[in-house]
Amino acid sequence: MEKVNVAVLGATGAVGRTMIRVLQERHFPMRSLKLLASPHSVGKVIDLGSKSGVVEEFSVAALKDVDLVFGAVDNDLATEYAPLIRRSGALFVDNSSAFRLDPDVPLVIPEINARDIRWHHGIVANPNCATILAMMALSPILKLTPITRMIVSTYQAVSGAGMKGMDELERQIRDPSAAPEVFPFPIAFNVIPQIGEFDEAGISSEEWKMQNEGRRILHEASLQVCCTCVRVPVYRCHSESIYVETHDAVSLQTIRQAAEDCSGIILNEAPYPTPKECTDSDIVMIGRLRRDGACENGLHLWCCCDQLRKGAATNAVQIGEWAWQNGLLKKGV
Amino acid sequence: MEKVNVAVLGATGAVGRTMIRVLQERHFPMRSLKLLASPHSVGKVIDLGSKSGVVEEFSVAALKDVDLVFGAVDNDLATEYAPLIRRSGALFVDNSSAFRLDPDVPLVIPEINARDIRWHHGIVANPNCATILAMMALSPILKLTPITRMIVSTYQAVSGAGMKGMDELERQIRDPSAAPEVFPFPIAFNVIPQIGEFDEAGISSEEWKMQNEGRRILHEASLQVCCTCVRVPVYRCHSESIYVETHDAVSLQTIRQAAEDCSGIILNEAPYPTPKECTDSDIVMIGRLRRDGACENGLHLWCCCDQLRKGAATNAVQIGEWAWQNGLLKKGV
Repeated sequence: MEKVNVAVLGATGAVGRTMIRVLQERHFPMRSLKLLASPHSVGKVIDLGSKSGVVEEFSVAALKDVDLVFGAVDNDLATEYAPLIRRSGALFVDNSSAFRLDPDVPLVIPEINARDIRWHHGIVANPNCATILAMMALSPILKLTPITRMIVSTYQAVSGAGMKGMDELERQIRDPSAAPEVFPFPIAFNVIPQIGEFDEAGISSEEWKMQNEGRRILHEASLQVCCTCVRVPVYRCHSESIYVETHDAVSLQTIRQAAEDCSGIILNEAPYPTPKECTDSDIVMIGRLRRDGACENGLHLWCCCDQLRKGAATNAVQIGEWAWQNGLLKKGV
Repeated sequence: MEKVNVAVLGATGAVGRTMIRVLQERHFPMRSLKLLASPHSVGKVIDLGSKSGVVEEFSVAALKDVDLVFGAVDNDLATEYAPLIRRSGALFVDNSSAFRLDPDVPLVIPEINARDIRWHHGIVANPNCATILAMMALSPILKLTPITRMIVSTYQAVSGAGMKGMDELERQIRDPSAAPEVFPFPIAFNVIPQIGEFDEAGISSEEWKMQNEGRRILHEASLQVCCTCVRVPVYRCHSESIYVETHDAVSLQTIRQAAEDCSGIILNEAPYPTPKECTDSDIVMIGRLRRDGACENGLHLWCCCDQLRKGAATNAVQIGEWAWQNGLLKKGV
């Protein structure tokens, strides 16, 4: 198969930079790599390992010959640029939340529903990072029985707010009186039970994502998920405490066996994963698997993954790999 | 009523020092205050505000004339000293977990089950800090209907491991390569889903406490609680994400009204409490009250309190106050 002309849109942000690194590490079959961004980042120089690249302004002309665009920009820019990318014939793998609930756009975690990439119409959406972690952690269970209900409390890293989130934690650790700018309260030596804005029922936008996106990824329209999404002073790895109810009863031993056949995860029960050790890894680590005392089909588990890698960049690159391997890039390949 | 001769046992630790401060702040009716500890702390000088006190060795002779002993020592010392305190005729309000499940010892949160102090036989146990926080946060609901089931994920401060826990966080913030001594993994920029030791079912000693102690405090022998107890890099305030099922359906509005009549708590929904702002307060702060999507009688909430104060020292001092006010100190008063 021919190699691919790739562009990373939003190349200067935390996710964009990680996409570039992951593309190189996984030896993505690139003929060329174009670094694109909005006007205010144009001209910035990005380290590409052996060489460096200069950021170009996003434009229709810049998309000429590009087969695959990885998007790491916010919803507004993604919405603005998506029709142009689509028209150019390139596939847009978008990490924003702009298209995640669009019935015309597949929402994909390759280990779970890669086949949904087949029906793309120019855009494939990358799920929310907390959703990717939860669904990957449940993937051994999903091989055995459908899940009906989840209650999730998250421990989310500051990288979820991009480089400015990581900078704010670092600044407040050095100077605890430094005023919060990115987060609604100080994050150093604190935890904040808010990610995104609240609706009238008091549920945050981040908390809705796991149910809304989970239903699409699993093709389970009645899945019930209640989350409490909490920011913690960890740099880049998310953790989650998950309670899940399954349709059929499954033994812990069966789940442990199923986990051995699942790619992208490791069940670590000796003793359990922490976010620190999962940083800079593509693996979703699972631990603390145990039964619930009240509900026969209830299980508890703990999981961690690097928010910037499998929670964002790596998942997007995997979508691109699968599309390329299955001849689903429209142009040039 | 006559004033009381008080002793603090374990006066040099984080909880012991906070007990001394809380006794002074609340103007506990003390005739005298004796500072007791195990032999290795004898001679240490403790700041008592206007003056200072010298730590004496615990002994039967030292208990002469003491009416009330607040215990802030570990289980082994509490178990060793308790019979001696009992025999001396003083009331022992013990913060260790040694006697919490002893059917002969009341386990008390004064706002919830103060009347259990009436049947004490020389010892009243102070509950686990995470249990105090959860039960206080649920106190408005408990006024309306029994609770049947809880799923709790905690965000517990390092002060739960005493001063050495706080020192370890501070040391690792300064030097991220500093090896963990108190906690099983590095705690700076990390979260650790283990507090206490695990049993064969993979449940930690801390995670059992909320069910075992909750059943005794609420007199609900069938209460089902499943916890995931997690240490976070916060200095001294615990937070919890609680899912609770009630026996009868109650509206959020009814709970909000009930909260106004509960002492020791504040419902803060504008927007929610964080552990940082609850530090050094005796108030349990509650927020994020909302309905569950799957279970009609299911509710979610978030809560925070200072682990050293209401989670330990203040609750113990309140027990002492209630015992004194109700003539339940055996000696001298």
